[in-house]
Amino acid sequence: MPRQPFIRPAIRRMAGYVPGEQPQGGGFIKLNTNENPYPPSAAVRQAIADCAGEDVRLYPDPMANALRDAAARCYGLSREQILAGNGSDDLLAMIMRLCVDPGDRVVYPMPTYSLYDTLVEIAGGTIVHLAWPADWALPADVAAANGRVTIICNPNAPSGTFVPVEALDRLAREVAGLLVIDEAYVDFAADSALRLVRQHDNLLVLRTLSKSFSLAGMRVGLAFGQPQLIDELAKVKDSYNLSRVSIAAGTAALSDADTVRAHVARVAATRARLIAGLRGLGYAVPDSQANFVLARRPGVDQRPIYDALKARKILVRYFNADGLRDALRITVGTDAEIDALLAALGDQHAH
Amino acid sequence: MPRQPFIRPAIRRMAGYVPGEQPQGGGFIKLNTNENPYPPSAAVRQAIADCAGEDVRLYPDPMANALRDAAARCYGLSREQILAGNGSDDLLAMIMRLCVDPGDRVVYPMPTYSLYDTLVEIAGGTIVHLAWPADWALPADVAAANGRVTIICNPNAPSGTFVPVEALDRLAREVAGLLVIDEAYVDFAADSALRLVRQHDNLLVLRTLSKSFSLAGMRVGLAFGQPQLIDELAKVKDSYNLSRVSIAAGTAALSDADTVRAHVARVAATRARLIAGLRGLGYAVPDSQANFVLARRPGVDQRPIYDALKARKILVRYFNADGLRDALRITVGTDAEIDALLAALGDQHAH
Repeated sequence: MPRQPFIRPAIRRMAGYVPGEQPQGGGFIKLNTNENPYPPSAAVRQAIADCAGEDVRLYPDPMANALRDAAARCYGLSREQILAGNGSDDLLAMIMRLCVDPGDRVVYPMPTYSLYDTLVEIAGGTIVHLAWPADWALPADVAAANGRVTIICNPNAPSGTFVPVEALDRLAREVAGLLVIDEAYVDFAADSALRLVRQHDNLLVLRTLSKSFSLAGMRVGLAFGQPQLIDELAKVKDSYNLSRVSIAAGTAALSDADTVRAHVARVAATRARLIAGLRGLGYAVPDSQANFVLARRPGVDQRPIYDALKARKILVRYFNADGLRDALRITVGTDAEIDALLAALGDQHAH
Repeated sequence: MPRQPFIRPAIRRMAGYVPGEQPQGGGFIKLNTNENPYPPSAAVRQAIADCAGEDVRLYPDPMANALRDAAARCYGLSREQILAGNGSDDLLAMIMRLCVDPGDRVVYPMPTYSLYDTLVEIAGGTIVHLAWPADWALPADVAAANGRVTIICNPNAPSGTFVPVEALDRLAREVAGLLVIDEAYVDFAADSALRLVRQHDNLLVLRTLSKSFSLAGMRVGLAFGQPQLIDELAKVKDSYNLSRVSIAAGTAALSDADTVRAHVARVAATRARLIAGLRGLGYAVPDSQANFVLARRPGVDQRPIYDALKARKILVRYFNADGLRDALRITVGTDAEIDALLAALGDQHAH
């Protein structure tokens, strides 16, 4: 008999999701959690400062309509096709609450964003892992896996690879359940599945303002889908899931697409340098359409490299997981940060 | 066959929680969602403004430790006994994820905070309603109702009434499951169950900064419990459930208890005037230890009164629910706001 028998066995068994390190002191070159190296524009920061008034005593708009309207204008959709989340993690959790009864299958190719496992465990669902093939193309058996929910992270984390939108269009027709395209990193890619929302009533596309929009600290995510589906999703959200400040910051950021485009272009240029540098050091690196790359030395555990970099105040992501221990996931920082990283890695591999 | 068969039947059936109106335009005397009529101090607002820097591009601390530490100092507990939520609604939802498997019983006396029903429905649990007696004392059958989770809102919403802490201490010993004391409004009361946290390993006490701390717009809630229980609860939270700004605002507010005490004293004085005025108009009003009161005309639907007040730009809360249609819940605003309300009510009842 456990000491607190009112805790669900599924939770007691769980280890819990471990987010990337977020050192609250400074001094680190932080290439571990895919933040944007460039800050949001002065206009966005002013929108945050403007929230420091007496209105913080009042509840926010529960539907965050100003933010939905800004997203509608930005993406050429309507408010009714959009729901805001406290980060896209909040939206992923909502999707589980919307769809997953105990035992229901949730399907996704591995490796991918490891939070999916945690969310399915919490929901009591059945995790169905498929394998990405060596070329990171969409696995052939996705629809046949018969998920109540199927999730494709695109670009995928941690590989940075991209599944063509045409393949996702076909998949949306083939799956019997809900298809979720997690586009957290899509602004760094050449295409997006957002246009599919009009064609499929079993599709949700997720975005976040944490990456391209430089607002990881503000927790703003967006879900796009047909209005009937968005209405059902809204039933399972927390009543006031975004603060007044998150709504204001997100609204300002979505109205400032030029800044985002400029940051994305800089990140893409640095990404090319990073990939070339890593390949020069002997790493296998798939082409990335995200703001990070996966650098692999097949069969060689990269934990010592991760540790050595950390000792030099450079944080990258090491996954202590099957099939990933021989890889590091490295966020595309500024040119100077990537120069420092490549120099440090060069030192390690010269030893 | 429903059009989107991947949606859980429980969600499809649900109406969804309807929060109180949050008019985004101004001009209303807003006495409907129990916000504090007084804004947070200049120091708290400065802490918000100070977050408008480049660091918003970085993720927040996933555990919000600065906030936990401020709460620990404020309440004489340790960080390990505290978890932060995106409002206490987030913590209530976490408690369901932690404890409630399909069919598990969740027990609470009615009427109470109507979000509990929504959260139990989402979790697939079994709602067990008990009835508050006429004097709003703790019902005798709470422990016998055998909840996996038992929730006591104290002070209770919408009645404003308070169950003595000694009765809750006994209840914590009697229940087989988890006891949750939702103390959203407790700063307006004469006592609190927080001291019981040390004595019971099946107890969580919830607080919010939305009411006494004047931060409804920032979404900050706190759960207090023994460390082992807090650790399990943390497993089911969203990874980054509080933004950098919410953490900063909450940390500053918890370090500024004098302002809160002063606001609470003003609200308590106005509450006494409001109750006297309502009784003078013929309403039955239980003594309130919250920042709102429940005004009842037994058997007389108050919808027309609600509508008439709204036409005069005064918002109060009308619940279209059995046993509550003859009542209005009225937030304690400023003296001027309450004068306006009582004058408008007087006009209605003079007709």
